[in-house]
Amino acid sequence: MIKEKFYTYIESLQDKIAAALEDVDKKSIFKEDIWKREEGGGGRSRILENGAVFEKAGVNISKVYGKLPETMQNYFKVSEAEFFACGLSLVFHPKSPMVPTVHANWRYFELYDKNGTIQDQWFGGGQDLTPYYLFEEDAKYFHEELKKVCEKHPNHSYEEYKKKCDDYFWNAHRNEARGIGGLFFDYVRNTQKHPIDETYQFITDMADNFIHSYLPIVQKRKDMSYGDTQKEWQQIRRGRYVEFNLIHDKGTLFGLKTKGRIESIFMSLPPVVQWKYNWTPEKNSEEEKLIQIVKKPVNWVS
Amino acid sequence: MIKEKFYTYIESLQDKIAAALEDVDKKSIFKEDIWKREEGGGGRSRILENGAVFEKAGVNISKVYGKLPETMQNYFKVSEAEFFACGLSLVFHPKSPMVPTVHANWRYFELYDKNGTIQDQWFGGGQDLTPYYLFEEDAKYFHEELKKVCEKHPNHSYEEYKKKCDDYFWNAHRNEARGIGGLFFDYVRNTQKHPIDETYQFITDMADNFIHSYLPIVQKRKDMSYGDTQKEWQQIRRGRYVEFNLIHDKGTLFGLKTKGRIESIFMSLPPVVQWKYNWTPEKNSEEEKLIQIVKKPVNWVS
Repeated sequence: MIKEKFYTYIESLQDKIAAALEDVDKKSIFKEDIWKREEGGGGRSRILENGAVFEKAGVNISKVYGKLPETMQNYFKVSEAEFFACGLSLVFHPKSPMVPTVHANWRYFELYDKNGTIQDQWFGGGQDLTPYYLFEEDAKYFHEELKKVCEKHPNHSYEEYKKKCDDYFWNAHRNEARGIGGLFFDYVRNTQKHPIDETYQFITDMADNFIHSYLPIVQKRKDMSYGDTQKEWQQIRRGRYVEFNLIHDKGTLFGLKTKGRIESIFMSLPPVVQWKYNWTPEKNSEEEKLIQIVKKPVNWVS
Repeated sequence: MIKEKFYTYIESLQDKIAAALEDVDKKSIFKEDIWKREEGGGGRSRILENGAVFEKAGVNISKVYGKLPETMQNYFKVSEAEFFACGLSLVFHPKSPMVPTVHANWRYFELYDKNGTIQDQWFGGGQDLTPYYLFEEDAKYFHEELKKVCEKHPNHSYEEYKKKCDDYFWNAHRNEARGIGGLFFDYVRNTQKHPIDETYQFITDMADNFIHSYLPIVQKRKDMSYGDTQKEWQQIRRGRYVEFNLIHDKGTLFGLKTKGRIESIFMSLPPVVQWKYNWTPEKNSEEEKLIQIVKKPVNWVS
């Protein structure tokens, strides 16, 4: 069954990603926590803290199922139903402000009718980059890698998913993007255009390429020098990350409403954050350049 | 008119509170920003940062009016309507983890029918204390001060408003209170039991006593010694404050939905915050004692 196949896949992907990060970090290793969800399911969380390269990094998998919580019925526009959901979520907060934060999530969902027959099923996911200082070549590299994978799957459009990402990771109350985007897709249902096995191929190809789309950027930037001013700027921008995740992010909301494990859901929150009142960067500074970039989505690849 | 009388009152209260805080802080002073709301109204924000006693303190007033935003119609269970709202909000984040954070808000609201006649009007407000280390005598003092004011107004019950506060400032996803509570009341409408002038007397008495309910606690604790461990604990607990304000707080939501000024709304967010994965205090430590206290509301005065 596809749900089992996908869960086995994300189990092994979690191993690979965690190992690749430890390889780069060299100082800290991931701590693992297995948790159970009272209403059905659970997960395996892996968090690394206070590394040489990563200040906080989480790569979690979970599988939750049972009765769809009432609070989620409206959300999915169904009445009483049983559901199954599994996925891998990761957020890496680097120590250096020169290295961008990255987020990725790949998930699979099933809704059942009264007889336990699948009445709806879909994949969703994406990955996006949040730099504190903009290196155009990094933004281009990240987007090119995403585009390459899409091009192997003609039914999945880089342009469409890139736009969805820009729309989704929009901090509406700040009128700015969370970062420089990436890909986002949801409700890719089992249809003639998107047979579920074909979408499985697409999403696992994308996830397989994740390490290659991000770690070269880390390698390139991790030893650049920076000072207190850059670190402070990073912590202020991390505040925007928190605002997005707690005010707008549907994944966080889904986790809270389905009574997921709080500490696993909040692994996405940055380790140290600042809110300074009305902080504005200097004219023509690198910090101001970043703000200009997040005010209006850029096409990083032509 | 009562709305003008109340706005004049909060203007002068803002002056008094800001002056009292500067007197205690002695190092930093408030910075003032006047802002206008495109759709009608605006406000006067005053923020103090990097003080000797207060790391970040905001005391803001605002007056917003015009067409009730569509997103708020459901909230107030009305269709198209004009509204007026004004209030004073304050949040003080002390530097020392021995000094509690305090929040207060007093507000007045009017909804109008098509002819501009008031069809609904109410006061709301409250104040609550969020300590990082629990000093029982401080919690008792704060609550006794609130109770004293309530007792001068037999139509306003300390017990009722105290319970509402415990219910409201509940971080449901953590299953714990934001702090040790205080008072909370909302929709105190113009009725025979609560003539609007009488509620005006109550709320202004309460607000007049605010400085006296909080500053003596600050004076008592501000020079106590503490170390990095206590500071780190304060920053972790501040994370819970952020979670409450961004996930649950209706005041924040109201500000965002009515397009209030972001930097004024977010003055409530603490200056430096930490999210450490699954951080748990040591058994029988002062930190654990606080967690026990916020797990279940306490009756601080008999």
